[in-house]
Amino acid sequence: MAKAKFAGVFAPIPTPFDEGGEIAYGPLRQNLARWAGTRLAGLVVLGSNGEFALLDPDEKEALVGFVREHFPADRPVIAGTGCESTRATIRFTRRAAQLGADAALVLNPYYYKGSMTDAALKRFFLEVAEASPIPVMVYNMPRNTGLNLSAGLVVELAQHPNIVGVKDSSGNIVQISEIVAGAPEGFAVFAGSGSFLLPTILMGGVGGTLAVANVLPNQCADIVSLAGEGRLEEARVLQLGILEANAAVTSRWGIAGLKAALDMIGYYGGPPRPPILPLGEAERSRLREILRQAGALGEMEDVEGGR
Amino acid sequence: MAKAKFAGVFAPIPTPFDEGGEIAYGPLRQNLARWAGTRLAGLVVLGSNGEFALLDPDEKEALVGFVREHFPADRPVIAGTGCESTRATIRFTRRAAQLGADAALVLNPYYYKGSMTDAALKRFFLEVAEASPIPVMVYNMPRNTGLNLSAGLVVELAQHPNIVGVKDSSGNIVQISEIVAGAPEGFAVFAGSGSFLLPTILMGGVGGTLAVANVLPNQCADIVSLAGEGRLEEARVLQLGILEANAAVTSRWGIAGLKAALDMIGYYGGPPRPPILPLGEAERSRLREILRQAGALGEMEDVEGGR
Amino acid sequence: MAKAKFAGVFAPIPTPFDEGGEIAYGPLRQNLARWAGTRLAGLVVLGSNGEFALLDPDEKEALVGFVREHFPADRPVIAGTGCESTRATIRFTRRAAQLGADAALVLNPYYYKGSMTDAALKRFFLEVAEASPIPVMVYNMPRNTGLNLSAGLVVELAQHPNIVGVKDSSGNIVQISEIVAGAPEGFAVFAGSGSFLLPTILMGGVGGTLAVANVLPNQCADIVSLAGEGRLEEARVLQLGILEANAAVTSRWGIAGLKAALDMIGYYGGPPRPPILPLGEAERSRLREILRQAGALGEMEDVEGGR
Amino acid sequence: MAKAKFAGVFAPIPTPFDEGGEIAYGPLRQNLARWAGTRLAGLVVLGSNGEFALLDPDEKEALVGFVREHFPADRPVIAGTGCESTRATIRFTRRAAQLGADAALVLNPYYYKGSMTDAALKRFFLEVAEASPIPVMVYNMPRNTGLNLSAGLVVELAQHPNIVGVKDSSGNIVQISEIVAGAPEGFAVFAGSGSFLLPTILMGGVGGTLAVANVLPNQCADIVSLAGEGRLEEARVLQLGILEANAAVTSRWGIAGLKAALDMIGYYGGPPRPPILPLGEAERSRLREILRQAGALGEMEDVEGGR
Repeated sequence: MAKAKFAGVFAPIPTPFDEGGEIAYGPLRQNLARWAGTRLAGLVVLGSNGEFALLDPDEKEALVGFVREHFPADRPVIAGTGCESTRATIRFTRRAAQLGADAALVLNPYYYKGSMTDAALKRFFLEVAEASPIPVMVYNMPRNTGLNLSAGLVVELAQHPNIVGVKDSSGNIVQISEIVAGAPEGFAVFAGSGSFLLPTILMGGVGGTLAVANVLPNQCADIVSLAGEGRLEEARVLQLGILEANAAVTSRWGIAGLKAALDMIGYYGGPPRPPILPLGEAERSRLREILRQAGALGEMEDVEGGR
Repeated sequence: MAKAKFAGVFAPIPTPFDEGGEIAYGPLRQNLARWAGTRLAGLVVLGSNGEFALLDPDEKEALVGFVREHFPADRPVIAGTGCESTRATIRFTRRAAQLGADAALVLNPYYYKGSMTDAALKRFFLEVAEASPIPVMVYNMPRNTGLNLSAGLVVELAQHPNIVGVKDSSGNIVQISEIVAGAPEGFAVFAGSGSFLLPTILMGGVGGTLAVANVLPNQCADIVSLAGEGRLEEARVLQLGILEANAAVTSRWGIAGLKAALDMIGYYGGPPRPPILPLGEAERSRLREILRQAGALGEMEDVEGGR
Repeated sequence: MAKAKFAGVFAPIPTPFDEGGEIAYGPLRQNLARWAGTRLAGLVVLGSNGEFALLDPDEKEALVGFVREHFPADRPVIAGTGCESTRATIRFTRRAAQLGADAALVLNPYYYKGSMTDAALKRFFLEVAEASPIPVMVYNMPRNTGLNLSAGLVVELAQHPNIVGVKDSSGNIVQISEIVAGAPEGFAVFAGSGSFLLPTILMGGVGGTLAVANVLPNQCADIVSLAGEGRLEEARVLQLGILEANAAVTSRWGIAGLKAALDMIGYYGGPPRPPILPLGEAERSRLREILRQAGALGEMEDVEGGR
Repeated sequence: MAKAKFAGVFAPIPTPFDEGGEIAYGPLRQNLARWAGTRLAGLVVLGSNGEFALLDPDEKEALVGFVREHFPADRPVIAGTGCESTRATIRFTRRAAQLGADAALVLNPYYYKGSMTDAALKRFFLEVAEASPIPVMVYNMPRNTGLNLSAGLVVELAQHPNIVGVKDSSGNIVQISEIVAGAPEGFAVFAGSGSFLLPTILMGGVGGTLAVANVLPNQCADIVSLAGEGRLEEARVLQLGILEANAAVTSRWGIAGLKAALDMIGYYGGPPRPPILPLGEAERSRLREILRQAGALGEMEDVEGGR
């Protein structure tokens, strides 16, 4: 599988729950059909936005299979497979491969922070990469894990033939630049949030897996394609225009914000799984305004009008 | 169950693995017999030192039952039952109760840090406490979770009749004092590390669950009992004397240090589960010296001589 | 000068300003007379609470002389003399000694954090201690400086005959314990905030320099003397009782809170120097309630009643 | 004075000291002549790299006058004038204007972090801007101050007609983008470090004040001009090529590294002022290699060859 396969904008989809707290597969199928009609390059299942940490092992397996089955086969589905132990990560990565995942997005272990030296992390990723039948993408998410994977470490990992890229959610453009500068040709650097998608692309990244891409898939895809055509000014206007919507579904209101936003634009969002609380009324009202300004409500209407 | 049941020094035992990486029940039974011969008030199974985050669900269940079965019935065994989702926490807490656990030590959810507001955390703990057939102890472990449970939140939780105490590993003596000042009479405040056991007791705490108590159980128990008798100077000498050994099995070398220390004093330590790396030779040599100075090697000989 | 001279409770006095923003020497003299009538062991001038960072060099000199002159000669006045450069620190420490300061409280340089390695900090403190005609007390204030002086570094510094103690404002009782355990006999360890005065004393410290001691001088002094007499339970009640008042004049409202509190209890507080903003009305009202509960308003009346 | 005046690459020059620790004006004049021969847009005197925190008030005044006098009058000299107190900042800003500074780079107060709310910081900057005869540029330097000025605050400040720009050293490209998106047309956003110069420019910034611009002035200037011409690929190659040299004179070795680098390329660097320690031999040797790879030694030879 060529490294180049992984490029463009991926949506790390949320996991929909019904009111009883179980996975809502019907609405999920409808969401998948909607995303299939956008310019998204592919999806990530079981990313942070997928509430992977709140799912049982059997739910995680079922989701990977379901999403792969109900999304167009020519577009990659990447599965989040990182667990705290090396052996659980390997076991689940192999299972995800059996279920059709095109690549594994592997978060580093983080609970035993004090023990997660570069040596321990390197061994972890190399063992997983060796054992994985599918390409591995390193996932750096310091805001949730409390650990940052340094550029030096990622560049080392990038030497392994089965480690094909990194999703860096740090937002640290210097670190991202250092990875581009140090990694082998073809190593795929992805922005981990929509707020720094364009800078990442301009510094040599190839795409992003972005919460906001669930809500504004075509605008995100356009940023990447405009940048590729050298139409920098248009790309910059789009990038600046999604900053607030991006914050609303990430740092500001998190998964609760993302799900509420999906509800507002005609997808199924539904409730987060406890302990995550749903958005309150005041926040919903503010969110709706932000989405309107970002053109997300309009985008919905366009899509629906096209049906 | 009276709140007063939980007092004194508890050892949060490590989970022993054999060279193949499976739980080593034989050595575990021998360790349990050794700890039973000390002045420990009880044990914690599936604490942070128990590598709970690296265990599969079925391993966790098996461990709770095994430890409860092989430790004297008149001394409490507390099970770590916190999971990321509320429902998984409730499910496992109930299962631990069935398996004989005397109380549940419940770590807060932490991966979705941005969503873990006080409101979300309060609801989480209250729902778990309502559903739990056994008393709940709140577990605050900022170094690993990246979140601190404020004194104000813990004082609120302490109002619930089934929330009987807190293990605070923050080391923040002001926060611990504020909890003592604000919580109802009988709420059990435990030091979460041996380095601040005596200050916690002197400010009104009732015990500790301490990694170093696996290695120096009687010295830790003596600190509490000497403080209770008003023999402050002796208690202080003991407390200052265990600082370096405590650091060696916690902040400095973590679980790898704790397991190596157990091997050195005649218990079974064995290898950590990957991705945690075992201690190197230079570190082992330094650790042995620290244990010697803390009297841990001598304590072993005393215990063995007494058999 | 014997190291034992520095023990007990010191008040790090605020610098009073008139409405025009100039130092208000008349009110300061009255404050000094009031503090002289309490059981304070001494004062600190130009501590963090003294707004030292907001004063001009000539104001700083004038204050040291004035405070030393107007406070009883048998009680020590310690001057804050730390500057960013080694040479400015030495120059001002020498000047403070000429002006009668009994000791120098030396804050570490902190703006060039990345360069403030242990080697650089050690050299700084040793050069200052060598050059200083008066004893040097190390001042660790991580909340303001963003740097923590480790126990290992302080223990090393404690070997120097002219470095007689440390004011540790970190609130880290483990670090304070490690300093006590490692430093030579007679090295004076001071709590840097009233919230952990008693734990510091019980672990082997000899006193505190505490913002709250400006407001509750006798209660703070009693904590130390009760602890010395082994009356631990009474000391603990006092300690728990001042936690909220302490927070009000430190972490919660800072210098603005301290000055407002002084105004409320009959001292002169006055306005902070800009950019620090004065307290708003709602905060003042809450502060007054906190002081009432802590007995600070009563203490004022008692003191005044006794005159 | 038009806001557009401040654009392009500025070097925040270090302050040279002789072996006795006094300012070395002769070597400084030679350095200034050298920088005048480059494509630098202007200079910053008394920036963080200028060791402003280690200088006496009279030294600071003298430096501003000297640098303005010995650098071409058609290129702006910006003076760092931030002090902890509002009144000292205003006083020195006015003095700098008298001495010919073209603008003031104003660092926020930071020692009393807990009191530096957005309200306090806003009032500080507005009062300084009102009082200043020269344009004010906000200086955000979280790594040294421990405080970050949020995009929201900077956007508010940008409304003031005499606040003409910001130097953001946070490296947070999202924050920089948010400032560009929210500030009025013509507000000058400067990168505060060479490691994120190109991303800043591409997102709408107009220049940078960069430590590395002291060492690689023309390469830095080329990044800006190539970006302006749409020659993105060439700009990116240059940007990636200076990352390691930039780190060497900033995060890795700080001012000691910058001064050693200047010595190596034929400028006068000289010793840092204590407590900053000079570089050791091993570090110098590594630094020389980094400079060679970055073309800094070659640049020197080119420049000298051209004379």
